[in-house]
Amino acid sequence: MSCVFCAVVAGEAPAIKIYEDEDYLAILDIRPFTRGHTLVIPKRHTVDLTDTPPDTVAAMTVLGQRIAKAARASGLHADGNNIAINDGRAAFQTVFHIHLHVVPRRDGDKLSFAKGMLVRRDSDREETGRLLREALAQIDTAELD
Amino acid sequence: MSCVFCAVVAGEAPAIKIYEDEDYLAILDIRPFTRGHTLVIPKRHTVDLTDTPPDTVAAMTVLGQRIAKAARASGLHADGNNIAINDGRAAFQTVFHIHLHVVPRRDGDKLSFAKGMLVRRDSDREETGRLLREALAQIDTAELD
Repeated sequence: MSCVFCAVVAGEAPAIKIYEDEDYLAILDIRPFTRGHTLVIPKRHTVDLTDTPPDTVAAMTVLGQRIAKAARASGLHADGNNIAINDGRAAFQTVFHIHLHVVPRRDGDKLSFAKGMLVRRDSDREETGRLLREALAQIDTAELD
Repeated sequence: MSCVFCAVVAGEAPAIKIYEDEDYLAILDIRPFTRGHTLVIPKRHTVDLTDTPPDTVAAMTVLGQRIAKAARASGLHADGNNIAINDGRAAFQTVFHIHLHVVPRRDGDKLSFAKGMLVRRDSDREETGRLLREALAQIDTAELD
């Protein structure tokens, strides 16, 4: 399969999953800018903002918002998040299956963020995934109350 | 009025408008990273992803997608766009009224993009606004056909 995200969706490539439903998948970026850097991926393959239905762009972002809230509530103790869609090669898109980045941030992390952009490594990805999944489940429960 | 975006919405602070409807406003960033750098702003004041309703986050992003498509179709000749929400001071948020950035990009503009992050100036903002408004109107017409 030529698209790595389609391979992840099909279970043919490994990923640490944060969230999954019928139409969307959220996984840890294998080269994170910061700890907890997550990608929200629609299961149906489209390339960028020119061919992705508006409803899909909306749903990706709303899921991104939930993950951003989870990152704040989680054991990662995020103080904020950058949400980003890189639309096109000119905008640093490298995987041509649309995705939304959630990059958890902490107060005063500017230097480690810059370092993270170069190093892009998480020494304990399994634990990072666990912390985000746990917080996401708690947020979802709280919102149903 | 203490919030600069609420002042723009109220017509009490100047802005070059790209789009406006009952609930949303899109204006040129006064300190653009690239030419055409636009901010999508909900008229109702909320701060960040923790207090903004999901429907608003969705609608902001869908409007951002339309502006991104307009930037490609426009006289700005964008080849792509970065879409971003900076959620919290830790994530470089500087105006505490939620907004979404649309940053038009061109192939091979990496150096001018980096320069733009430092200089943040557009020598012809009126013309930039006109080009984006024109392309947005054309896109909207095409989608109604």
